Amino acid sequence: MEQVSLATKTPSNVITCKAAVAWTANAPLSIEEVQVDPPKAGEVRIKIISAGICGTDNHILEGKNKVPLPAILGHEGAGIVESVGPGVTTLKPGDKVLTLPLPECRECVYCLHPKGNFCKKENILSPTGLMLDGTSRFTCRGKKIYHLYGTSTFTEYTVADEIALAKIDDAAPMDKVCVLGCEVPTGFGAVFNTAQVTPGSTCVVFGLGGIGSAIVMACKASGASRIIGVDINEQKFPRARALGVTDCLNPNKLKKPVQEVVMEMTGIGADFAFEAIGLIETMVAALKSCVMSYGVCVIMGVAPSGSQLSFDPAELLPGRTLKSSVMGGYKTRDGIPKLVTDYLQKKINTDVLITHKLPFEKVNEGFKLLREENCIRCVLTLRP
Amino acid sequence: MEQVSLATKTPSNVITCKAAVAWTANAPLSIEEVQVDPPKAGEVRIKIISAGICGTDNHILEGKNKVPLPAILGHEGAGIVESVGPGVTTLKPGDKVLTLPLPECRECVYCLHPKGNFCKKENILSPTGLMLDGTSRFTCRGKKIYHLYGTSTFTEYTVADEIALAKIDDAAPMDKVCVLGCEVPTGFGAVFNTAQVTPGSTCVVFGLGGIGSAIVMACKASGASRIIGVDINEQKFPRARALGVTDCLNPNKLKKPVQEVVMEMTGIGADFAFEAIGLIETMVAALKSCVMSYGVCVIMGVAPSGSQLSFDPAELLPGRTLKSSVMGGYKTRDGIPKLVTDYLQKKINTDVLITHKLPFEKVNEGFKLLREENCIRCVLTLRP
Repeated sequence: MEQVSLATKTPSNVITCKAAVAWTANAPLSIEEVQVDPPKAGEVRIKIISAGICGTDNHILEGKNKVPLPAILGHEGAGIVESVGPGVTTLKPGDKVLTLPLPECRECVYCLHPKGNFCKKENILSPTGLMLDGTSRFTCRGKKIYHLYGTSTFTEYTVADEIALAKIDDAAPMDKVCVLGCEVPTGFGAVFNTAQVTPGSTCVVFGLGGIGSAIVMACKASGASRIIGVDINEQKFPRARALGVTDCLNPNKLKKPVQEVVMEMTGIGADFAFEAIGLIETMVAALKSCVMSYGVCVIMGVAPSGSQLSFDPAELLPGRTLKSSVMGGYKTRDGIPKLVTDYLQKKINTDVLITHKLPFEKVNEGFKLLREENCIRCVLTLRP
Repeated sequence: MEQVSLATKTPSNVITCKAAVAWTANAPLSIEEVQVDPPKAGEVRIKIISAGICGTDNHILEGKNKVPLPAILGHEGAGIVESVGPGVTTLKPGDKVLTLPLPECRECVYCLHPKGNFCKKENILSPTGLMLDGTSRFTCRGKKIYHLYGTSTFTEYTVADEIALAKIDDAAPMDKVCVLGCEVPTGFGAVFNTAQVTPGSTCVVFGLGGIGSAIVMACKASGASRIIGVDINEQKFPRARALGVTDCLNPNKLKKPVQEVVMEMTGIGADFAFEAIGLIETMVAALKSCVMSYGVCVIMGVAPSGSQLSFDPAELLPGRTLKSSVMGGYKTRDGIPKLVTDYLQKKINTDVLITHKLPFEKVNEGFKLLREENCIRCVLTLRP
């Protein structure tokens, strides 16, 4: 009996499908035929339905964040379970899932700690490009293709570890909820979990892209009375204002450093400052923009590999706090399905964070939108 | 009547007394006759009874922390009010006080905020060496002598602003409680207010001098189950163990960076890391010693002027918090008298933090002890 059961759970078929392969950095993705191996023990193969293009994907493609290449990029995706490997107990074919660049094993010291979420099973700071067993499930033209953060969503089919998938409500609209796999928890969690923004507070948000916009929404939901938005792309200002930004600043048009302008506007600085860009200079500006005596600066942007954040420690001495989090501090498999439920119950409206939709094949156009246009999030859709 | 009252409150007599003058950095203090002007409006003249020698005084004397010179150093002192200037309402001659390098005006935005203590009336990060009115009360050999942090305690008489003095219990033993003016609140507050150490936690303390020892005591009082002490002076280890340190590390005798050893000893790092030295390299080591996913690193040491703290922001990304505070985050005039009461009620025993006592005239010997010996705190005593 057990052998039969194992056979059922271990499909031997390889799926050939389309995927966008990043052969090298600084080049367009290439739509290719790839072979996707069946899931091994503890793994799940998924039909991807939608995938968001995140700033981190762009940083990787621009060579700023180093990951093993060639790879199938994309880490924010919604899909349906196609098959499961041996030992998978929490998912079955047909289940709707979101891919999780940060897994939750529920066994390691970080997962078991009330405040921890940086699951030890996957170190996204030193990406291997491989499944947890140290191998890849992707082949293209006979070559091994790497995974990204155990997810890889710019493909018709992918394989992920069971611990890197959040089972979500069957009623979830798959073209909408993929942003709840990275953009929304990262931004919301920065505000609700990491900073713990208080009613009546003043917030400043550096970067009004996907994460920054989610941060703005959450600051407003937390009762912030003033939200200063900072971006060098003024096309983003009208949408930012609609989301809750009260004052917009373009550092390129200021005569003084932006942190000095924030100090002047507020008298003493912002109670909470958020960096959602990933540049050292905006991280330092965010730190200096918050109140000396009790300001909290939360860095959510991912700086280029090997960056050094540098500042006089006297900036902290009067009482400032500098912190950060991955995926907004959410324990991903526990927290993200709840966000989907909140969305379905209309407690949060994250549709406004999706500004563009393109068919998967136009992925390169999506990256162009992200770099140049008034784009918060471009979602790629795949044929069901 | 009002004129009489004013005359009473504004003594016109100048006091000539002994003080230790720092004419330049990198030279011994010079015991000199100085003239101490009477207190002006809002000021108080104090007979100093005891004064602790703090690491920050030493940093100043060694030229690492820049303040205007020549000056009378010392910022931790216990004294008795000799006279008060016009408008002083909370103190009268004969009151026992502790000098406060960080005042509490109870009017500024920081004082009024529940979490703030970095009173705007005195910016200790940019010390002017003057009273709040922009002038000095000290003269020596016809030259103006600067104050230090509005306190200056290495002198028989000093003048301080009313907001920079904590009125303490009449029963306080003056040779013991001076450490409650800086060393104790800085260390205790780092643990109780800034880090909020939790029972059962693992702590690592870099630097086992005055502040570090107070931190160790407070970690133990908070129920920390393991306290790792780090110092290159092994003479400090027996006393550190007596205060609560469970493991002692001398970085100079380790084959690996101390943060790697802490990681190995604990498996995942310390829940809370404290830096009480004031060196950039130990600040970075402290940050890297705490748990990636939820560790809190508190920097209490004051780095040399113009230092740059530099690290890969990816060190913060998994969920670490980096913070700091002045005077342990205590609102000084409110919080420090309570610590004195706790001391008198034997709730805290801070006598163990005083390892040496010297007559005031031997101040240079006290600095030598601090630099070279097994000295936590040397208290100078003055003739009453």
